[in-house]
Amino acid sequence: MSLGENPSEGYPVAMRIGIVGTGRFGSFWATSLSKHATVLTFNRSDRPTPEGCNAASLSEVGSCDAIMLCVAISAIGEATRELAPHLTDDAVLMDTCSVKVDPARAMVAHAPPHTEIIATHPMFGPDSAGAGISGHPFVFSPVRASERTSSHWQLFFAELGLDVIRMTPDEHDREAAFTQGITHFLGRVLADMDLHPSPIATVGYQKLLEVMQQTCNDPFQLFVDLQQLNEHTGEMRERLQTSLGRLMELLGGSTTDRGPSAVDSSESGS
Amino acid sequence: MSLGENPSEGYPVAMRIGIVGTGRFGSFWATSLSKHATVLTFNRSDRPTPEGCNAASLSEVGSCDAIMLCVAISAIGEATRELAPHLTDDAVLMDTCSVKVDPARAMVAHAPPHTEIIATHPMFGPDSAGAGISGHPFVFSPVRASERTSSHWQLFFAELGLDVIRMTPDEHDREAAFTQGITHFLGRVLADMDLHPSPIATVGYQKLLEVMQQTCNDPFQLFVDLQQLNEHTGEMRERLQTSLGRLMELLGGSTTDRGPSAVDSSESGS
Repeated sequence: MSLGENPSEGYPVAMRIGIVGTGRFGSFWATSLSKHATVLTFNRSDRPTPEGCNAASLSEVGSCDAIMLCVAISAIGEATRELAPHLTDDAVLMDTCSVKVDPARAMVAHAPPHTEIIATHPMFGPDSAGAGISGHPFVFSPVRASERTSSHWQLFFAELGLDVIRMTPDEHDREAAFTQGITHFLGRVLADMDLHPSPIATVGYQKLLEVMQQTCNDPFQLFVDLQQLNEHTGEMRERLQTSLGRLMELLGGSTTDRGPSAVDSSESGS
Repeated sequence: MSLGENPSEGYPVAMRIGIVGTGRFGSFWATSLSKHATVLTFNRSDRPTPEGCNAASLSEVGSCDAIMLCVAISAIGEATRELAPHLTDDAVLMDTCSVKVDPARAMVAHAPPHTEIIATHPMFGPDSAGAGISGHPFVFSPVRASERTSSHWQLFFAELGLDVIRMTPDEHDREAAFTQGITHFLGRVLADMDLHPSPIATVGYQKLLEVMQQTCNDPFQLFVDLQQLNEHTGEMRERLQTSLGRLMELLGGSTTDRGPSAVDSSESGS
């Protein structure tokens, strides 16, 4: 069927979604979708089939109503090229990357000219949405799609309970660099420092440890791509280094000069 | 009464605790203690009397069973000097600072030679323990006190539901530099970057924002003293800067060189 033929019906129960890439996020996402659609999964190398899904060939996946690429940001072009010959006329191609401008360009460059393309970014993963995806932000960026197709799929994701936010790929990348981007960067910095749990951990320190553990559970490739393929993360890292330097200077490095006395102010910290 | 006279009784209901310094933490701590003891408070400048407590003169405060200094780390010496003439023979002097070696030295230097001294660090504040102090870590460091007095007060704080951890001032300072110290430093760095809430905030980013907001609610003096009066925080900041530099180098600064392709790995992050 062609999408949106019967908008009054919402989305067809028999809707079929193809997933390319069943890595850590792909398998989590495929299983989440399998509660709402028939999900066919393909992974180039041998991997267990995600719960609730059906392993399929690339051509079977290409015949689904929508195909969602769950591969590395830096691999979207290659994955689109491999999938292109198998895409049926009505198939909608989507990615799920943490960067949007670069993968959107890659999909446009390598998908058949008539294929509709929507870039998406589920702002969560198996750690943060282990209890369920409902309520988590889901960025939705039509790249080359009719409004009819776009609103049809926007409704589908909203009906999963996701907080669907429509923005352009560039709007996403700027916002993500200073939210998800800085979180993953600091998480890796803390891991490099080898921080560990402590009997005297404050609530705030426990939150830093959680950020470190959660970001380091994701593939290192995600960290590298997030930092290198989003053109705004360089500015984020430079601003982080500038602010850190400003505070180091304010404190005089590691000196122990006494600050001004303040008998009235309280001391124990959160 | 002299402390520990009747250890079998635990602590007397009529126990009187004096609080010097009713700033943000001091007033929170005084009110928390007022549910378990009679609390007299003194603040050098005019401040509202904390709920459940009684405003008192420095000499009335000095006549309590225990006097807890809730002033800036850099002000402990001065506060002890002012209080010294008013301390009765049985009074036990305690501080509540986020650094322990420096305030312990200052109390020993300025308290009467016979005064028993115990350094403490409640590892929480009005933000992190707004729902109650029970279960939060409480560092307990006898500096110049009989085991009888020490165990008496250790029991008192344990009976408040606190997780009492006995360690030396130096053991505390090393551990605190790499837990509370790094948390407050990063919280101020993030505030200097002017991070803000976002519609596409991930769970991890929300935790960073909470760390920023919580640490910046504490007095700036606490931040400065934490970083300058704990002799281990300099090493913490240097290790943080080293790890940050190592990751910047790994990423090639703000370049956008593509990482190696990884078609199989998943991408959307926590």
